[in-house]
Amino acid sequence: MEQMTYKDSGVDIDAGNESVRLIKNFVRSTYRPEVLGDLGGFGGLFALKNYDEPILISGTDGVGTKLKIAFLLNKHDTIGQDAVAMCVNDILVQGAEPLFFLDYLAVGKLVPEQVADIVRGVANACKESGCALIGGETAEMSGFYSEGEYDIAGFAVGVVEKKSLITSARVKVGDVVIGLPSSGLHSNGFSLVRKIVFDRMKFKGDEKISELGKTIGEELLTPTRLYPATCLPLIRKFGEKIHGLVHITGGGFYENIPRALPDGLGVTIDADKWTVPKIFGLLQEWGNVPRREMLRTFNCGIGMILIVDENSVDELGKHLTDSGEEFYTIGRVVEGNGVEVIGGNLKD
Amino acid sequence: MEQMTYKDSGVDIDAGNESVRLIKNFVRSTYRPEVLGDLGGFGGLFALKNYDEPILISGTDGVGTKLKIAFLLNKHDTIGQDAVAMCVNDILVQGAEPLFFLDYLAVGKLVPEQVADIVRGVANACKESGCALIGGETAEMSGFYSEGEYDIAGFAVGVVEKKSLITSARVKVGDVVIGLPSSGLHSNGFSLVRKIVFDRMKFKGDEKISELGKTIGEELLTPTRLYPATCLPLIRKFGEKIHGLVHITGGGFYENIPRALPDGLGVTIDADKWTVPKIFGLLQEWGNVPRREMLRTFNCGIGMILIVDENSVDELGKHLTDSGEEFYTIGRVVEGNGVEVIGGNLKD
Repeated sequence: MEQMTYKDSGVDIDAGNESVRLIKNFVRSTYRPEVLGDLGGFGGLFALKNYDEPILISGTDGVGTKLKIAFLLNKHDTIGQDAVAMCVNDILVQGAEPLFFLDYLAVGKLVPEQVADIVRGVANACKESGCALIGGETAEMSGFYSEGEYDIAGFAVGVVEKKSLITSARVKVGDVVIGLPSSGLHSNGFSLVRKIVFDRMKFKGDEKISELGKTIGEELLTPTRLYPATCLPLIRKFGEKIHGLVHITGGGFYENIPRALPDGLGVTIDADKWTVPKIFGLLQEWGNVPRREMLRTFNCGIGMILIVDENSVDELGKHLTDSGEEFYTIGRVVEGNGVEVIGGNLKD
Repeated sequence: MEQMTYKDSGVDIDAGNESVRLIKNFVRSTYRPEVLGDLGGFGGLFALKNYDEPILISGTDGVGTKLKIAFLLNKHDTIGQDAVAMCVNDILVQGAEPLFFLDYLAVGKLVPEQVADIVRGVANACKESGCALIGGETAEMSGFYSEGEYDIAGFAVGVVEKKSLITSARVKVGDVVIGLPSSGLHSNGFSLVRKIVFDRMKFKGDEKISELGKTIGEELLTPTRLYPATCLPLIRKFGEKIHGLVHITGGGFYENIPRALPDGLGVTIDADKWTVPKIFGLLQEWGNVPRREMLRTFNCGIGMILIVDENSVDELGKHLTDSGEEFYTIGRVVEGNGVEVIGGNLKD
């Protein structure tokens, strides 16, 4: 009877080893001094420095069906940034400095060069966010994902001193809402995006869209912005004057802003106060998407929100301007609950 | 023109909210006193207690194509334990106490009751391992996974005092290798398992296997053993007398045992020293799998290995016996490199 081996079953241990060989230098380039050991241990080791009362903040996320755009364009070196950004932007909002990151990558067939592209994207985004890539799993799941397709999930851990933890308790009526621009769609709402762009509009991935000045594929695959480099210096400099941060992730404005507010407070946002990137207007037009749905599904051009003491807004704005950072003053904290969006932009 | 919404695109936010309602009590039941906040924050918060020199140890893993067995049997309340076990067993081997866990669950279509089954399994395994389930992502990726199918990945973080970190430096010639029984196949090698059981043997999932006294599906879906409850008390009681731990995970004996050994040392393992569970012999027979391949792919009945100072073996054995724990003395650390397996069991 013919002998059966693990390799015959579609799992190629040699390809796995080749992947590790290709990625190990990217991975090591992310190491902070606190990282102990090297690739290949059972766990990733990180020596936590001295804190009075350290609060570890952790988050996990994937990039959803944005992956389908990477498959369509056969471009795999940007999706890693999406995985990192979705996680580090989440832990940032309570004031955490990202410390380390791990990725889970499940592939239909392990192609070392493709894995290397993906992980290089992860590693570069980790470096840009100041966190070490100290672990990961690459699983070859034959018969599970199509050849050339994969899923990726990320996991980030950060730390903040308990006294510096940003909670909704600081937010008060009159606080000013400042928006930081997104880089595009980020990694939310892609099931709807794909339905509009490919099912209704029948665009090909390489279709040039004159309003965008690029192909639709390039626009959609633009990696999610990493906010730590902008926000951590603000948090350190302005401390308690920053009353809240909001990552505009799945659920958009309506579901995320309330997560940073205490009961009894809401916000009024004026959608005319920022330039909505063209892709959002196009998606709204192509899909005839109601404004409320736009704001519940997409970031609409604002990927991170700061809620700031009104007496500190000028100083904070000056700091951002001096640092070359774009920002928009988009609203106020008000009595009441929920998120009201006024203004003509994104109007149905 | 017809309006398009996120829900029309196959993402059901209401089903997501219903899932959260169904799982929140399981999730809360895992909370340790160090957990701050509640479900629904951007990140999971964990207040680390006082340590002199805390080393955080983290790991990520999935359960591979064992998922296909859960789909086949339409049984989803055990796979969560597999996800937890694969991660906590990894971080345990360097002495870490698991603190918290996050899960990433990607589904084709969000069925709240199915998500609740999966997460209940995760939560129960977290409780049994002493770690809090402080975060998670459930992503509905329409057109990505088939309806009823999903992928799951886990992330665990633990902590150990630097002076108690278990490294290969402690291991020396003459150390005794002790094996703790596995609960079955655990979560490795399922691509080969499925090929043997379903492609070659043409078994149905509910086929009763007389040698096993159960159906093949029940045998294959047996959840991965969680080792923290057995190993953490040992680590605390025996301290530096435990020179190493090895999680027999992907890569089996040959690739995992060397991860715990310093250069220049190897082990000799006698495969006659433990009772190999019947499933491994059957797989070997059905697939005509060479012994070396069995030991490189499966745990073959030993899921966790302790490398122990030879002067402490009797005391440690007594402790295990008194605690009602099964164990086998299966080998020795020797000069040289690599893993040699002797004995008649699993012989080709």
